[in-house]
Amino acid sequence: MGKLLIVGTVAFDAIETPFGKTDKILGGAATFIGLAASHFNLDAAIISVVGEDFPQDYLDLLKDRDIDISGIEIVPGGKTFFWSGKYGNDLNTRETLATEPNVLIDFKPVVPDNFKDADVVMLGNLHPDIQLSVIEQMEERPKLIVLDTMNFWMNTTLPELMKVIEKVDVITINDEEARQLTNEYSLVRAAAAIHEMGPKYVVIKKGEHGALLFHKERIFFAPALPLEEVFDPTGAGDTFAGGFVGHITESGNISFNNLRNAVIHGSNLASFCVERFGTERMLNLDRKEVGQRLQEFVELTQFDIEIE
Amino acid sequence: MGKLLIVGTVAFDAIETPFGKTDKILGGAATFIGLAASHFNLDAAIISVVGEDFPQDYLDLLKDRDIDISGIEIVPGGKTFFWSGKYGNDLNTRETLATEPNVLIDFKPVVPDNFKDADVVMLGNLHPDIQLSVIEQMEERPKLIVLDTMNFWMNTTLPELMKVIEKVDVITINDEEARQLTNEYSLVRAAAAIHEMGPKYVVIKKGEHGALLFHKERIFFAPALPLEEVFDPTGAGDTFAGGFVGHITESGNISFNNLRNAVIHGSNLASFCVERFGTERMLNLDRKEVGQRLQEFVELTQFDIEIE
Repeated sequence: MGKLLIVGTVAFDAIETPFGKTDKILGGAATFIGLAASHFNLDAAIISVVGEDFPQDYLDLLKDRDIDISGIEIVPGGKTFFWSGKYGNDLNTRETLATEPNVLIDFKPVVPDNFKDADVVMLGNLHPDIQLSVIEQMEERPKLIVLDTMNFWMNTTLPELMKVIEKVDVITINDEEARQLTNEYSLVRAAAAIHEMGPKYVVIKKGEHGALLFHKERIFFAPALPLEEVFDPTGAGDTFAGGFVGHITESGNISFNNLRNAVIHGSNLASFCVERFGTERMLNLDRKEVGQRLQEFVELTQFDIEIE
Repeated sequence: MGKLLIVGTVAFDAIETPFGKTDKILGGAATFIGLAASHFNLDAAIISVVGEDFPQDYLDLLKDRDIDISGIEIVPGGKTFFWSGKYGNDLNTRETLATEPNVLIDFKPVVPDNFKDADVVMLGNLHPDIQLSVIEQMEERPKLIVLDTMNFWMNTTLPELMKVIEKVDVITINDEEARQLTNEYSLVRAAAAIHEMGPKYVVIKKGEHGALLFHKERIFFAPALPLEEVFDPTGAGDTFAGGFVGHITESGNISFNNLRNAVIHGSNLASFCVERFGTERMLNLDRKEVGQRLQEFVELTQFDIEIE
């Protein structure tokens, strides 16, 4: 069975949308990635850090899904990373109300021995030095290293980020961030510029407008599923990444054609994530629903045209 | 051979983009629709009006493509409709610099006798009373009536527009206009609300983010082709509509599955339109290029996933 190693935050989120607000609930990039990946047949481990205030119940949720959490450090007396945000009426804009890094500040990731030979490494959004440290601890070069990052690291730690970018096979990034990183407005040109920085594959996420996968001259596009209602976008990008690496790890196939399927799997799981607050929908999602909605993606995108 | 009747403007445009600006050049909804439709095997006619200032060369361009222009009235001493606009740096916003309706003001469309039995009627963006008049002149109910409109008519002539909407089979409209017309933010809900107004099929155009086709509970999505550079978006929506009705008229098939293909044909032709100013690219486009780019749409969207 393929091994997937995930590094990222395991955290508390407090979310406000036009539909309601939450107290501190389970969140964090690695949490969403792990929950999405747990829908595939693979061995997954999470590397992260939490404080003593983090409920055992939340850790058990991950463990119950057969995720190896031996790499989640619990800092005695420490406080867990906390993020709070408020979405605008169209859910396309959000305001950060609070970011408390807490135990993240001194976090030194340690890759568990049994995952130093992982097939796929997913570097969730975090300080690039932490991401780099995980790569350097691997005993052999993984088949595929996937990086997620955001504009915050471009603004504050660009040289460190560039060092990670040159070492990875795939980067997932949103459209505005791709433009910021490359100074190219056209996403086709932005992807070409990012290829030059290192990654063979570039995934540009456009939220409700879908995701593009670039590889040399080839492009694949996966739409987001049109939904009657998006309830809470928190974690959608991480869930996408989790579905993406989950499918790749399960299949063991890193061809462009299989990465197309991985993008569809990512979009599919993300379409569930946004239906409820936080991780709620991902925790109540069965195999049949996942398969039915994949069929909706087929119907949404497939056509049969005669080309002369 | 199927007959396609087009009503819409034939006009002068003056366009400014970050890449340059034009003098008065050939423009107008019916022009773009007709040029796109001329790539299909069909009989097309345009109903419109121009002034005495309109060059015979421009009319000949349409005639050379076997478009019946007997329904284009030339008003002696009249001035042709003129539109001028300036696009912002990202080409997603545009400012109208001038709109001179001129001969459009008293335009009374007359359907040529030999097109009163057209299979498909394309109502290009115009005053809804003109669109309605064309429907009423048809001797028999066309197989398919397609309506394009815009927010201007919603703001100024909503009751008249609603009368047209209830009589058509398909409406093409952009995302913001769909939201305005229905007061629904979700495009899925907006489409459902528009179904209630009359149209069996709703096409929501999202510009660079593609187009959605809705029919009852079914949805199809066609992306826009990711381009290195968009040069001038003018006419892209009309070109999309022309490819859409062109394929339907040629095939004579109004099933949902064939309308999927029609949306792809529309997106394909629109991807050429934006590569040059105005109609320039559409006038220099051969069958081979069209076929090659259709193949790019296949590669962009098709995948082969195993669903359990």
